Amino acid sequence: MKYLAQKAKEASKSLRIARTEEKNTALLLFAEELENSTKEILSVNQQEVEKAAKTGLSLGFCDRLSLKGRLEGIVEDLRKVAKLPDPVGEILEEIHLPSGLKLQKKRVPIGVLGVIYESRPNVTVDVASLALKTGNAAILRGGKETLATNRLLITLLKKALERSPLPVEAIQFIDRPDRSLVLELLKLDREIDMIIPRGGASLHRFCVENSTIPVITGGVGICHLFVDESADLEKSLPVIVNAKTDRPSVCNALDTLLLHKEIAENFLPRVISTLTPLGVSFRLDTRSWDLLSPQEGEIFKKAAPSDWATEWLSLTLGIRIVDSLEEAITHIETHSSGHSESILTNNREHANLFVERVDAAAVYINASTRFTDGGAFGMGAEIAVSTQKLHVRGPMGLKELTTYKWIGEGDYLIR
Amino acid sequence: MKYLAQKAKEASKSLRIARTEEKNTALLLFAEELENSTKEILSVNQQEVEKAAKTGLSLGFCDRLSLKGRLEGIVEDLRKVAKLPDPVGEILEEIHLPSGLKLQKKRVPIGVLGVIYESRPNVTVDVASLALKTGNAAILRGGKETLATNRLLITLLKKALERSPLPVEAIQFIDRPDRSLVLELLKLDREIDMIIPRGGASLHRFCVENSTIPVITGGVGICHLFVDESADLEKSLPVIVNAKTDRPSVCNALDTLLLHKEIAENFLPRVISTLTPLGVSFRLDTRSWDLLSPQEGEIFKKAAPSDWATEWLSLTLGIRIVDSLEEAITHIETHSSGHSESILTNNREHANLFVERVDAAAVYINASTRFTDGGAFGMGAEIAVSTQKLHVRGPMGLKELTTYKWIGEGDYLIR
Repeated sequence: MKYLAQKAKEASKSLRIARTEEKNTALLLFAEELENSTKEILSVNQQEVEKAAKTGLSLGFCDRLSLKGRLEGIVEDLRKVAKLPDPVGEILEEIHLPSGLKLQKKRVPIGVLGVIYESRPNVTVDVASLALKTGNAAILRGGKETLATNRLLITLLKKALERSPLPVEAIQFIDRPDRSLVLELLKLDREIDMIIPRGGASLHRFCVENSTIPVITGGVGICHLFVDESADLEKSLPVIVNAKTDRPSVCNALDTLLLHKEIAENFLPRVISTLTPLGVSFRLDTRSWDLLSPQEGEIFKKAAPSDWATEWLSLTLGIRIVDSLEEAITHIETHSSGHSESILTNNREHANLFVERVDAAAVYINASTRFTDGGAFGMGAEIAVSTQKLHVRGPMGLKELTTYKWIGEGDYLIR
Repeated sequence: MKYLAQKAKEASKSLRIARTEEKNTALLLFAEELENSTKEILSVNQQEVEKAAKTGLSLGFCDRLSLKGRLEGIVEDLRKVAKLPDPVGEILEEIHLPSGLKLQKKRVPIGVLGVIYESRPNVTVDVASLALKTGNAAILRGGKETLATNRLLITLLKKALERSPLPVEAIQFIDRPDRSLVLELLKLDREIDMIIPRGGASLHRFCVENSTIPVITGGVGICHLFVDESADLEKSLPVIVNAKTDRPSVCNALDTLLLHKEIAENFLPRVISTLTPLGVSFRLDTRSWDLLSPQEGEIFKKAAPSDWATEWLSLTLGIRIVDSLEEAITHIETHSSGHSESILTNNREHANLFVERVDAAAVYINASTRFTDGGAFGMGAEIAVSTQKLHVRGPMGLKELTTYKWIGEGDYLIR
């Protein structure tokens, strides 16, 4: 592991000074290699998906392993990344100090990234391309179920790098599914500058607890939407539908709906009758339960205290009636994972108070929580969504894979 | 510890929305309290300094404990911080997306800072003031030798906070010198957002190895200055003198001087004859040793391999002669701690190459390494110098004690 990390660190030295065209050339060559080997990739991948299905892994999980129908999109994304502006080299600040020192704050690559992800093999291509574009070396560790697919993707990447001006060692891949290697990786703080976990809460927790390298935690979104008494209820319904049902398995999907008591009586039945046909089931607090008096079963359950701290990742929705904006904020403060929170309101004061008080990566006024995403934020690419507060908060695009360096110049200047 | 951290987190909620005037009022009240209790502070501090001296601690160390002659400056700095612009609330970006989403990236406080420092009690006041100014709560842990002084400073701060609009619990102080409490602190990642160690390399290492909270490492500077063959030697001498002798005990002081072979024969004797009367002693590589043929003793020693990886923090200077800019860069790559590196040259290409290739928080062309400092960079205040690459690199002022929040607004907008 250490040897592998040292090779990545060595490569990062030439990547740091690589020109934009050189980096783009490498990305386009990689796209070409993937295109030329489409058949082989899909066949290797297909075998792994079948094997996973046989071992009894869920359909949803197996689907995430598959590249079928997705490879074209992956190649297209690669070409899109090549076209994105290169953030490296940007002068962020320029200061002429009274001392005579001319100071520049310049955007530079971070160095070596460690990325630990789970099933999806498209992450291998995504991460490699974003790392190369930003002049970073990377060490990748994918899921064991797609080891063969990832190996092949990496072989094609190495082929592309060999034909390119970039160092072949720029992207390292851990090709043994041994978990102890991850533990080793997380301690290499002299070689690796940043760890990005991509996966569930337990993977993030594992990294935080074991890493001596800074970890970008995130991905877990317990997201709330509060419908204030002043909200336009007609317009609120589609926002709730979008936040909950557009893509329920992702981190920016809605988990808990908070309703102001003044509108609950009329509005809650409409919410239920709109969402039920879409397959949504509900966890109701006592007040909404009493208001609806539903039949307990698959669709309606009484909410347990732990339900408010659950990221559903499915078509389940918690619903709670609150007395006031204050109570809504307190509920969010208590249960939010700091990802995405939204208020629907026509009251400007309430909107401002919500935005000021709620501590999350993204806070919305009259918009769906689903917007928290590199693409929707116009970043052109996304490697992760951070719910911690240092370096990057929210969607992490190309800029967020860079750091800066101070450059001071004088005429043989002393302090 | 957890209870204390929870109180800080609770306080951070009202600090987050405190207005600039409220924060400044608290700082000015604190300054007032310190002034009114000058006698008492100095007396308590004097007793601790004497006690430390009796236990045989070094003069330099005891001097760092003392507030004598420094309290006025500390109070003045407090008033200066009150006058600095408040970074919180700044709109960093504003984007109108094609989707109709109006997106703002707004600067906000981080939340709760954990600051672990050693002897100097002035850090207690510094850190408290910078945290309050930026709307952050903080948990402080000072050195055991100044426990009574720190306790008194914190009592005065609490008095000031009681009279101010800010919450009294905003600044928490760990008033037991038990190291296991630090270990506990470092694991409270649900309450604390950032750890700033201020002290030697071992404290930084301890935090990195034990913390589940992001740590801003830094403070350790193995700094190099390379005199290129094209350098103006007349002008180079004062820069070397400044970098080495101006304040040898700080992290931006020069540790290793690299000389291009073409200028070494003439220039090295001048360096030696200039620095020796200033009390500097030398660790010479073989080539400089052979060139000078000095008498081995207190002033001249042959450099051991480990000397190149030593932060001297004293009037010792390593000297090495190199064949080329390339060899200088390689030496720096191998031994730099990523703090401050400088080239003296009249060759623009060499200057650019040095700046591009050397990976450090601050890289200088024709300037002393001593400039790496919040004050010298015009930040108005400094809480630490970071040598890691995430969130902040180099001097850490007020802005670096903030994060951002995305605020999205739409007209009941869906994705």
